[in-house]
Amino acid sequence: MIKINADRLWSRIEGLSRITDPAQPWTRRAFGTHFAQGRAWLEAEFKTAGLSVEIDPGGNLVGRLPGTGRGLGALVAGSHSDTVPAGGRFDGVLGLLAALEAAQSIREQHVPLLHPLEVVDFLAEEPSDFGLSCIGSRSWAGVLGESDLARRLPSGVTLASAIDRVGGAAERLDRPIRHHDSVAAYVELHIEQGLVLAERNAAIGIVTAIVGIRRFEVTVEGRADHAGTTPMSLRRDALVGAADFIRAAEELARSRPPESPYLVATVGKLAVEPNAINAVPGLVRMILEARSTDPAALDHFEQLLWKQTESESGHRGLCLSISSLSQTLPTGCSQLVQDRIEKAAAAAGLSSTRLPSGAGHDGVFVARIAPMGMIFVPCTDGRSHSPEEWAEPADCANGARVLAETLILLDRDLS
Amino acid sequence: MIKINADRLWSRIEGLSRITDPAQPWTRRAFGTHFAQGRAWLEAEFKTAGLSVEIDPGGNLVGRLPGTGRGLGALVAGSHSDTVPAGGRFDGVLGLLAALEAAQSIREQHVPLLHPLEVVDFLAEEPSDFGLSCIGSRSWAGVLGESDLARRLPSGVTLASAIDRVGGAAERLDRPIRHHDSVAAYVELHIEQGLVLAERNAAIGIVTAIVGIRRFEVTVEGRADHAGTTPMSLRRDALVGAADFIRAAEELARSRPPESPYLVATVGKLAVEPNAINAVPGLVRMILEARSTDPAALDHFEQLLWKQTESESGHRGLCLSISSLSQTLPTGCSQLVQDRIEKAAAAAGLSSTRLPSGAGHDGVFVARIAPMGMIFVPCTDGRSHSPEEWAEPADCANGARVLAETLILLDRDLS
Repeated sequence: MIKINADRLWSRIEGLSRITDPAQPWTRRAFGTHFAQGRAWLEAEFKTAGLSVEIDPGGNLVGRLPGTGRGLGALVAGSHSDTVPAGGRFDGVLGLLAALEAAQSIREQHVPLLHPLEVVDFLAEEPSDFGLSCIGSRSWAGVLGESDLARRLPSGVTLASAIDRVGGAAERLDRPIRHHDSVAAYVELHIEQGLVLAERNAAIGIVTAIVGIRRFEVTVEGRADHAGTTPMSLRRDALVGAADFIRAAEELARSRPPESPYLVATVGKLAVEPNAINAVPGLVRMILEARSTDPAALDHFEQLLWKQTESESGHRGLCLSISSLSQTLPTGCSQLVQDRIEKAAAAAGLSSTRLPSGAGHDGVFVARIAPMGMIFVPCTDGRSHSPEEWAEPADCANGARVLAETLILLDRDLS
Repeated sequence: MIKINADRLWSRIEGLSRITDPAQPWTRRAFGTHFAQGRAWLEAEFKTAGLSVEIDPGGNLVGRLPGTGRGLGALVAGSHSDTVPAGGRFDGVLGLLAALEAAQSIREQHVPLLHPLEVVDFLAEEPSDFGLSCIGSRSWAGVLGESDLARRLPSGVTLASAIDRVGGAAERLDRPIRHHDSVAAYVELHIEQGLVLAERNAAIGIVTAIVGIRRFEVTVEGRADHAGTTPMSLRRDALVGAADFIRAAEELARSRPPESPYLVATVGKLAVEPNAINAVPGLVRMILEARSTDPAALDHFEQLLWKQTESESGHRGLCLSISSLSQTLPTGCSQLVQDRIEKAAAAAGLSSTRLPSGAGHDGVFVARIAPMGMIFVPCTDGRSHSPEEWAEPADCANGARVLAETLILLDRDLS
């Protein structure tokens, strides 16, 4: 089985992490100066590893090893180098540098691959300042619309010009820039950003699907009254109605049978009006987010929640209104890729488990053009998108090894 | 029975209301320029009505009619001319101008009073920019401490110097400036700021007591996790715990037996952290306010609420902490004054009902030195502390008539 260089991987993780906005570690916002410094550092590392390097029209940094076969699409591995503000040192970074480590080890150990192997740093996977995420992977699938490219920062800069500035070619993004022919498969290693691997004591997670996300704005309208002079029986307290809603959503999501598809529901954001100590709340606005691997499970959850809370709020004299903000469909991972990851983990003597990804990833868009799979490794306490995000060096090395072996297995089985 | 001039009263309510911050009607913040303009207008009106006028050391504007008796304390009626930001045209204004109307009518109709009669505009009844309310009435009772007088605005101005600037004498506020000997009784007319009079179809409210107010800071600490990757069973969602608390407080306050003392409980203010669409809430801070006319009822309510919510939050793996922010005791209204109000209402052919005041008033402090009572009249939809606050001219006139007659009855019965 392929060996990887765990120390080199770890030192690269440290090297890229150090390129951060010093005022707010760890931050490399897409399109910003630290992001550009990171890209320059990556280009040099890609070259050191023996890859040819280019920026594609979508602004993605692509490193490439040729294959020995002819006319085959590339095996692609990668992730992203941008971060959320004050994010962590592993989200994106691990998957990207593990892909580089896999490619370098494959080259150094002269493992013959039929397919070309690409290591890709997708542009702006995190929600960017343009209010859009997964910009680079959307460009591969051709789903960046004119209105997306016309988005502007307060400074007036458009997304199109920002893509050009990082070396892309926005005028070519009116159609997919990659096709099934040019991508044989896509595999991404990522920290889990959750607690399931720890709970199951597994070293490797095999992702079965990336959840679909539905977001709703929920408002509860009552009447703002004086908190001293309004007897309980005469109140229409919007915050009490919101409390009903929050509890109902939690309970409906939590109390589903254990064998049912993955589903989580969260009210993460809430604002009260007038939000005064001595006023009965008159209005509450909140955002409900529900995620599942199964659209039918989401439909059923919503149906039950709307029905129960509509009747509860009616009894309290409150007006509940719910409007859809956004909706993405679940994306299944390729069965073929899942099976090769499982085999690779077993070959490395690592325990593995299948689980859904509750977070979105570039794979959602790459899956539109090629078989897609993801590998998870544990991260401490499930923490992510925070400066405390951590993954143990041994877990990072395990992930890189399984990624490299998966690519080798796919090279054989996809031919 | 005494007659009052309803048109004059109404035109004065309109006159004082017009003196407002034009950018934010209806606003006369204590110590501000529109407040000073209002005071100048009031002084002129007091003089027109035949009252002698002075500013006392507490910064209160006091108009006075002499009595025919010797060595008697004054019958005092009044309220306040300051407002909350974007407040209403009746809160304070009605009670103050009705007291002036009562005094002027008594003088014009040559009703002989043994006691002197005082009309008082108490300084800063509403929470002032110094973070303190009822400043003028506190000065009467001698409960303005050194630390209160040393409070500062961001500009550096102290409360002591602000009191001096409106004509008071802060150096004399280290002891009560009025005593039982100088105040025979205090009666204040006010809009109800609630819905009880409308519910009971009563023209006049006889206040039995002013509630005590207890405020608590309640924090629920859980763990901020990724809203996509954290299964429901592994969450410690602080907002779900807060929802438990909000519902429990409401239900315990609402479901008490009908004959039990007045009690209301409100969570009016709430903040979520991190308050992000895709994060399980890690921390919620909220303010609980409970008000009652009966301290034992408050004790009992708290006991039940703490017990129930502590156990609920424990089951959810949350940490609930509750700390007291402030506490005022309930203040009973004088039985003698209540009975005279009832008699006066009956003489005027008006229906009356007894009810507590759920809001705080200057009477809380005046009651420390003299028998105190309050008269309520209805206001539209119970609205107050908002630009929409409204009271019908006929209800205002009813209140003024009952106030005047109550003062006449007290003059006789207190001699």
